[in-house]
Amino acid sequence: MSRHDPNDGRARLSRRQLLLGGAVAGVGAVAAAGADRILDPPAAVAAPEELNGTQTIAFHGSRQAGVDTPVQAHAAYFGLTLRPEVDRAALARLMRILTDDAARLTQGEPALADSEPELALVPARLTVTFGYGPEFVRRAGGPTPAWLAPLPAFTIDRLEPAWSGGDLLVHVAADDPITVAHASRMLLKDTRSFAELAWTQIGFRRAYGSEAHGVTMRNLFGQVDGTVNPTPETTDFDRVVWIDAPGSWLHNGTSLVIRRISLNLETWDRLDRSGREQSVGRTLANGAPLTGVNERDEPDFAATTPLGFPVIADFSHLRRARSDDPDERIFRRSYNYDLAGTGGAISDSGLIFGSYQRDVARQFTPIQRRLDELDLLNEWTTPIGSSVFALPPGCAPGGFIGEGILG
Amino acid sequence: MSRHDPNDGRARLSRRQLLLGGAVAGVGAVAAAGADRILDPPAAVAAPEELNGTQTIAFHGSRQAGVDTPVQAHAAYFGLTLRPEVDRAALARLMRILTDDAARLTQGEPALADSEPELALVPARLTVTFGYGPEFVRRAGGPTPAWLAPLPAFTIDRLEPAWSGGDLLVHVAADDPITVAHASRMLLKDTRSFAELAWTQIGFRRAYGSEAHGVTMRNLFGQVDGTVNPTPETTDFDRVVWIDAPGSWLHNGTSLVIRRISLNLETWDRLDRSGREQSVGRTLANGAPLTGVNERDEPDFAATTPLGFPVIADFSHLRRARSDDPDERIFRRSYNYDLAGTGGAISDSGLIFGSYQRDVARQFTPIQRRLDELDLLNEWTTPIGSSVFALPPGCAPGGFIGEGILG
Repeated sequence: MSRHDPNDGRARLSRRQLLLGGAVAGVGAVAAAGADRILDPPAAVAAPEELNGTQTIAFHGSRQAGVDTPVQAHAAYFGLTLRPEVDRAALARLMRILTDDAARLTQGEPALADSEPELALVPARLTVTFGYGPEFVRRAGGPTPAWLAPLPAFTIDRLEPAWSGGDLLVHVAADDPITVAHASRMLLKDTRSFAELAWTQIGFRRAYGSEAHGVTMRNLFGQVDGTVNPTPETTDFDRVVWIDAPGSWLHNGTSLVIRRISLNLETWDRLDRSGREQSVGRTLANGAPLTGVNERDEPDFAATTPLGFPVIADFSHLRRARSDDPDERIFRRSYNYDLAGTGGAISDSGLIFGSYQRDVARQFTPIQRRLDELDLLNEWTTPIGSSVFALPPGCAPGGFIGEGILG
Repeated sequence: MSRHDPNDGRARLSRRQLLLGGAVAGVGAVAAAGADRILDPPAAVAAPEELNGTQTIAFHGSRQAGVDTPVQAHAAYFGLTLRPEVDRAALARLMRILTDDAARLTQGEPALADSEPELALVPARLTVTFGYGPEFVRRAGGPTPAWLAPLPAFTIDRLEPAWSGGDLLVHVAADDPITVAHASRMLLKDTRSFAELAWTQIGFRRAYGSEAHGVTMRNLFGQVDGTVNPTPETTDFDRVVWIDAPGSWLHNGTSLVIRRISLNLETWDRLDRSGREQSVGRTLANGAPLTGVNERDEPDFAATTPLGFPVIADFSHLRRARSDDPDERIFRRSYNYDLAGTGGAISDSGLIFGSYQRDVARQFTPIQRRLDELDLLNEWTTPIGSSVFALPPGCAPGGFIGEGILG
């Protein structure tokens, strides 16, 4: 099998069908129909008769995929440290290679030097998203946005270098864990002469097909997590997330804050149901604010109990995270992690918290500062990792991610 | 919300619908229809219009689920070491508690003391399977089958205590990783006064919906892995897997060998395609034997090349694993693992190899011995963990797993 065919759509599908063999013979026509939809991400949710594994998300476009893409079930985040000798020209070479890999893999095609090409044939809505840390932007010649720096130190932080920082972010997500593992490996292999792997964070959400589309995730505390989130492809979302600065290398880009938050399930489990709901300000049953009935009801912070106390306590996460300043808003896209426990613990569980916004300092930091000052949930959560990345815009076929700063 | 309702099927579904809220309102009727199927595991494959998360696998029955159950996408295996003071009566208490947890959780019901009950509402074909190591059986009063012991030492083994042995196995599998995480936590919490967690192995396969049903898994080497496997619910499968010894505590039970096999992807990637196919004896494209065209073609070990060499090399994995002795057969049910790499490695990848058979010594060990003596694949694989467990039969409602030896 040649891995270097020109990217003719028809040839590509035939080859996939050939490689997948008889197993998908019956859905060949459906898969071919699905290929026409790749430029329209919101339609990429599988029709019932279609295998989810054949679904693709367009790679090329004015903005990178993997931000407003309906969230996939599995994700990996890799923080890389550039080798000392890597200069601007080398960064451009690196990003051309990674862009080529990502453009192929996301469409269910093997990477150019794919060592396990058959594992590439199930894209399962794969996206690959790249982000740059301060050192990457410095070597690329800048300019560096003011917010592209480590977050201010918060008193609740117990940051471990093993989970923090990074010059280059490679973020891989798909509905299939083998797809994530394979794409990650192909991409990371191509970074080896340019960078060292500093950290790996692997996370999951509900599987594809487990719940109806659009149900808000529950984290491993059992909380409905992410209710107040702008809706992709609305003006509101654009204003929160996408940088609008024509002429800048970050026009149509965004920023990503990744916080690794350890959840102390041992002590959380000792808290009763009412205590948990007080700490969050929402019911556990359906995530409604304690003053409401449905998940998306607007909280009434003025409502009081017969004794005169606020129904939604001042120390609750919901109250502290909320701002009257319309600029202090973020888009959350988070994953759970659950690793083997050490030292007698049942598990090592937590959240890979992802916050996207135009401006970290203006939007994310004030919220985090309020939560740092007071948030009852801090009793059971500990930030152990923190990174900030600038996510450049997308690119057209033939271009590469980062061409605005490296080209 | 009470978590102690009698297990009335109608009430249970109503509560689930209530808790899941509007999100599943449209599929309520379908979910209710699905509940009628829980006694019929082979029918549990989701009809297209049904959410896979609502699918359940029957817990009660003459044999434990999770062995012949169509393999789920996610699995966790926990090896536990019994505390010194735990005697036969305590073991019976432990198994009653764990049976109750498993019976509820697998049907999409919270465990009795479930701290995050909402996370229990997506069963996603959850199964919980228990196995006993030699020490468990000794404390239970025996008798201990001759094969229930550590495997003989193999020259290829580089076993680490961290991945080996164990008195009690708790094996959790489902199509949803949050379901696996939650069920695992509830079960392990209930073992705490009886046992310590010795090891955790978490694995994955292709996601539900990624590929057509019945496609043989590829491992992270890209190989089609598991072609020759008896088909559940056939006489052949029964003869390979289920112990037929009326009157014995293991009647309708089986045994499980878990081998953690590290895959050296770094060196494997340096091998060309032809070399990989030679080492396995099968094509990478579709897993056909090198003498055949289709995956399930019978290999022709007598076939030779024009130069007179065997087409399927004597040192190939396929040749070495095959036996003419009809007793030397096993049922494989394996998972991939892919963890963060250490010391500069991109990843820590491998296989959680699971082999089920009536008799480990008669069926598994001879095959493994041949592979130990000669198997080219040994160049790129290293067994780093090994455990053997006796899996007792299933139980009826009101009974408990292990009642045949503990009751």
